[in-house]
Amino acid sequence: MISKMAVVDTTTIGSGTKIGEFAIVRMGVRLGKNVIIHPHVVIEPGVVVGDGVEILPGAYIGREPKGVGATARLPEFERHVSIGSECSIGSNAVIYYDVRIGRNTLIGDNTSVRENVTIGERCILGRAATVNYHAQIGDRTKIMDLTHITGNSIVGNDVFISVCVGTTNDNAIGKLAYDDSRVQGPRIGDKAAIGAGANLLPNVEIGEGAVVGASALVTKNVLERKLVMGVPAKVVRDVE
Amino acid sequence: MISKMAVVDTTTIGSGTKIGEFAIVRMGVRLGKNVIIHPHVVIEPGVVVGDGVEILPGAYIGREPKGVGATARLPEFERHVSIGSECSIGSNAVIYYDVRIGRNTLIGDNTSVRENVTIGERCILGRAATVNYHAQIGDRTKIMDLTHITGNSIVGNDVFISVCVGTTNDNAIGKLAYDDSRVQGPRIGDKAAIGAGANLLPNVEIGEGAVVGASALVTKNVLERKLVMGVPAKVVRDVE
Amino acid sequence: MISKMAVVDTTTIGSGTKIGEFAIVRMGVRLGKNVIIHPHVVIEPGVVVGDGVEILPGAYIGREPKGVGATARLPEFERHVSIGSECSIGSNAVIYYDVRIGRNTLIGDNTSVRENVTIGERCILGRAATVNYHAQIGDRTKIMDLTHITGNSIVGNDVFISVCVGTTNDNAIGKLAYDDSRVQGPRIGDKAAIGAGANLLPNVEIGEGAVVGASALVTKNVLERKLVMGVPAKVVRDVE
Repeated sequence: MISKMAVVDTTTIGSGTKIGEFAIVRMGVRLGKNVIIHPHVVIEPGVVVGDGVEILPGAYIGREPKGVGATARLPEFERHVSIGSECSIGSNAVIYYDVRIGRNTLIGDNTSVRENVTIGERCILGRAATVNYHAQIGDRTKIMDLTHITGNSIVGNDVFISVCVGTTNDNAIGKLAYDDSRVQGPRIGDKAAIGAGANLLPNVEIGEGAVVGASALVTKNVLERKLVMGVPAKVVRDVE
Repeated sequence: MISKMAVVDTTTIGSGTKIGEFAIVRMGVRLGKNVIIHPHVVIEPGVVVGDGVEILPGAYIGREPKGVGATARLPEFERHVSIGSECSIGSNAVIYYDVRIGRNTLIGDNTSVRENVTIGERCILGRAATVNYHAQIGDRTKIMDLTHITGNSIVGNDVFISVCVGTTNDNAIGKLAYDDSRVQGPRIGDKAAIGAGANLLPNVEIGEGAVVGASALVTKNVLERKLVMGVPAKVVRDVE
Repeated sequence: MISKMAVVDTTTIGSGTKIGEFAIVRMGVRLGKNVIIHPHVVIEPGVVVGDGVEILPGAYIGREPKGVGATARLPEFERHVSIGSECSIGSNAVIYYDVRIGRNTLIGDNTSVRENVTIGERCILGRAATVNYHAQIGDRTKIMDLTHITGNSIVGNDVFISVCVGTTNDNAIGKLAYDDSRVQGPRIGDKAAIGAGANLLPNVEIGEGAVVGASALVTKNVLERKLVMGVPAKVVRDVE
């Protein structure tokens, strides 16, 4: 069932796949079986969509990054996106080029994921969240609404990051030219949990199974299975 | 004035109602009088829109929730949305099924409201805000931009919640299976006010007329007409 | 290259300009040379778009503000928007009427800018950010994702504001009727920097070159070239 009001320039479409009105699927896109493309979705060339994926109205898949300003990083990217089987991509979500998403992962409404990002399988990325370039997110990890994952960061498996969390990668706060060796986000170990409204400074390491309390400001590394709280965050006790 | 470029499958449309280009109004939708449906809006079956409502471009009304992941809650919902007269629904806003919105309420751009939610009349819900499942919001309450209202929470009448506020409902931070009796958001009393960037832990009660300062972390109940501040929040004085 | 599936009511279109499918460009819009209007963009009458501008899918330019509620401000605005040459307007961004944006500025995806706002040249406004009415933002300033710039605020040149920052303009937190002389946002001097998750109370002044640490709560003026940290923020040292 492909709407006559859709613009479909590809012929690589699996059986049972539906494309809604005013959706646009460009040449070279590959859609699996039983995919649902809702109205007003735009999918650019080079995007591969797995079986059973649902893409909600107004999502845009395959955005080109754009470098602007004197100190900014020049984006490098491949014109490719892969979305694993059974994923759900939210309404008005924006997925840039060079993003790989594992199967059974949910991307929330109004959420945006920049280039050079890998997201594992069975993850949840909430609504109105933003993921910056060159972030790596493991499997079964949940990142809640209104949270920002900074560029050049690593998030492990089975991590929980609550709402309104800010992560950062540049101690020079925008004053110096971009340099990969200096601009580093946090590295968050497997099974760690980050509370609501916490902020993580650049380059900190959160150990496996560690817990960062709500509203905490993490200024230095947190060892595995430690609970930290406060502004700045201090160790309170071991996690049981 | 119904655009010939819109897809309109319902005939229950009041006088004076306008539907813009590339909008989609599915079968069984009921539109009141003098409604303005802007271009690219999608309205699913079972949605009832009151007189004088304006729905801005790209809004999506009647989204189905989708349960994913081992510990997640299975969504239950009715295929119904009601939007009271004179409401304004922002551009690219997403309203899930089973939401009831009172008259004269404004929903901001890029804001998303999940299933089983009631919002009263004369409320303002800001831009890029998110409301989770099974939240109950009273009348004349204002919830500002970039704020998250968690699942299973109750917000009273005449409440003011500032920008960038995080609320939470699960002390197990994603580690346990979903259980209604354990997962409880805050209960915020009438006329209470919550400052910018505050975070509220699960299950706290904010008394009537209480004030939570900006950046505060509320870890326990706040009695009525008390002012609390700090991380963690402590009582500073009575509210005048 | 103007798509036959677009709605184009203006004839003031520069050479080399492209308009994508299902885009809507109303009467009286002026588009410069080599502009790219992606699919599903809506541009209302009175919008002027400079040469080389790119507007990504689903953006809405020329939204009318809507006043609601007893204590709200009645919006005043001109039906005009100007977007300087070489700007990039993100996917699903919403730009209200009476906004002026300088050249070479980037507005992120899902970001919303209200009426009576001026943004300078070579700025970056991140994704899912919100700017309220009557804010003035200088040149070469960067405002990162998920940050809110309040109404009646002034942000200087070469300022850096990190992610998840909240700014406010009303100590009465929604309890009193709107009054311009009372409702004042912060004034942030040139070259100042505001860390992630910081919150700024109404009417504070941040001096030139001052730095506000991550998670800080600014409750009073910060002198130029001072570094402040904490909740509430205190002076730590001079900025080098």
